[in-house]
Amino acid sequence: MGKKNVTFDDIAKYTNFSKTTISRYFNNPDSLTLENQQIISDALEALNYKENKVARILANGKTEFVGVIIPNLYMHYYAQMLSEILATYERFGYKFLVFEGNQDKAVEQQYIQELLAYKIEGLIVLSHTISSQELASYNIPTVTIEREDQYTCSVNTDNYMGAVQAASLLFKNDCDILFHLNQQVSETTPGYQRIQGFLDICREHSLPHRLILTSFGRTYEENEKRLGEIFRELEENYHGKKKGVFVSNDTHANIFLNLLIRKYGRLPEEYRIVGFDDSPIARSAIVPISTVGQQIGTIAHQAMELLVTQMNERKKRKPTPLTEPIHQIVAPVLIRRSTTD
Amino acid sequence: MGKKNVTFDDIAKYTNFSKTTISRYFNNPDSLTLENQQIISDALEALNYKENKVARILANGKTEFVGVIIPNLYMHYYAQMLSEILATYERFGYKFLVFEGNQDKAVEQQYIQELLAYKIEGLIVLSHTISSQELASYNIPTVTIEREDQYTCSVNTDNYMGAVQAASLLFKNDCDILFHLNQQVSETTPGYQRIQGFLDICREHSLPHRLILTSFGRTYEENEKRLGEIFRELEENYHGKKKGVFVSNDTHANIFLNLLIRKYGRLPEEYRIVGFDDSPIARSAIVPISTVGQQIGTIAHQAMELLVTQMNERKKRKPTPLTEPIHQIVAPVLIRRSTTD
Repeated sequence: MGKKNVTFDDIAKYTNFSKTTISRYFNNPDSLTLENQQIISDALEALNYKENKVARILANGKTEFVGVIIPNLYMHYYAQMLSEILATYERFGYKFLVFEGNQDKAVEQQYIQELLAYKIEGLIVLSHTISSQELASYNIPTVTIEREDQYTCSVNTDNYMGAVQAASLLFKNDCDILFHLNQQVSETTPGYQRIQGFLDICREHSLPHRLILTSFGRTYEENEKRLGEIFRELEENYHGKKKGVFVSNDTHANIFLNLLIRKYGRLPEEYRIVGFDDSPIARSAIVPISTVGQQIGTIAHQAMELLVTQMNERKKRKPTPLTEPIHQIVAPVLIRRSTTD
Repeated sequence: MGKKNVTFDDIAKYTNFSKTTISRYFNNPDSLTLENQQIISDALEALNYKENKVARILANGKTEFVGVIIPNLYMHYYAQMLSEILATYERFGYKFLVFEGNQDKAVEQQYIQELLAYKIEGLIVLSHTISSQELASYNIPTVTIEREDQYTCSVNTDNYMGAVQAASLLFKNDCDILFHLNQQVSETTPGYQRIQGFLDICREHSLPHRLILTSFGRTYEENEKRLGEIFRELEENYHGKKKGVFVSNDTHANIFLNLLIRKYGRLPEEYRIVGFDDSPIARSAIVPISTVGQQIGTIAHQAMELLVTQMNERKKRKPTPLTEPIHQIVAPVLIRRSTTD
């Protein structure tokens, strides 16, 4: 063990300040001039205090920790987004406390309260559990990704444009009828715009279409069961028609594709599929899936930049808080693979 | 912002101790009696110091942070293991600083050094980048999972038994020749035992067999390219023979399966496949994949229990360090699905 603590005495001797001054540095740094703060900070370095960053956190409130709340790691989209967020360490130096929300609001709130007690500097929230209004009330720099964001800064994909790209591609594939499979999303989430974009393109081209908004469950087994029911219903009711299916994420698009391949041994001419996200499963599917690519790396990077700006502002002597949240939009990229012509 | 710091003055007045005593509490708590530490700790609570856990960390060295170093989140096995580790928060209360290693040793070392400076209490390491000897030299409770572990405590699957189960199943499926696809693993990693178990069963039954130990690359595209080459080679050289393929992880087993389905539209009688891990991709594959199930939840939980024991020991006045590392083994579970009879 052998931890050797540098004491206030040591620091006082080194700097020629009184112990009271050193104590003020740790307890109320703003009561010292910036110059004297710097002298003490330099002394801490020299005395190899750098081995105990906790002291510096006490001094300047900088923990370099950011909390990340994701809904799950089962969805490939979230696993990849987390991967891209973690990768920003090399650029920005922030370290990430990761929590999987699993939709239990009380546990998620408790976790965030703990992080706040540890003086984390910021939060990136992908889970939908806690409203943006409540997140904003925590009074800590926060950026949300692809969730309700009325009161928080956010970085989202242009979901409307993505849906327009997907529906237009299925239209150009000469589909007789278009389907959009999605969760029952609230109007306040960015994902709701996918429904709007889909509907607008269908109406523009007077294309028969149907929205299938439903709950898919939270495990693979539940997902597959629900998608199986939908698949059998389409087979029964739309036989002989060329069906264009726009699925709201690649994980579900892949399950839907597998149902087709299990029945037909290949993707029948009667079906065209477009997913959403461009998560790894779209590439590695049995038939590589056409998809609306979210630029996950770009989103993660912009989210961190937006967060770092806010966190740096907080460190100023007289921070200017944002008057209203900033919402950034990242363009989607249509990726044509083998589930469309 | 409005952060109101409780000063040493406030704490001194409240406790009737001198400011020097308070300062010693934060800088060198062991110089105070446990009783006086408790009085000050209670005062911090009463003064609502609980909103700043950082002060308490300084006082007692308890950060409740654990670092987790994983190689990547692309492999389903790692994503699920991380998910199970994060889920232990509700049981143990530890919060996880997560880092994706990506095999860059210098960055991984820097990251760990930073975590140590922040006084994290323990480390869980799944990446292979840093030797267990170096990890042990950091002098912090550490548990490794499925990697070289000579000098660190570890929790591993019984890889030998898993390979025995896989090869025996392929033998019972009347395969003419058995293949084992794996990375070139070092003899010191637990995964090496998979090769031994495979070879022992083949020899026991005098079964023709071949080890294919190779580098698969780090992206899906690289994985698929290499597996495609292996697939074409098997097709060419072992035509007409019933081939039993034991793949060292489900992600690669799924890619291999997709190559077969793309060519034949189904899994031909001439092939039998067993994966390893029981990660979600095995269940959700186009043909659900038989696999050697790692009990990922059990492994994560045991790893945390082993770590918590060590971390608690460190908090004692006179900790008794382990004389040698503890290695725990978790039994694998053979899961028969549709890629074997």
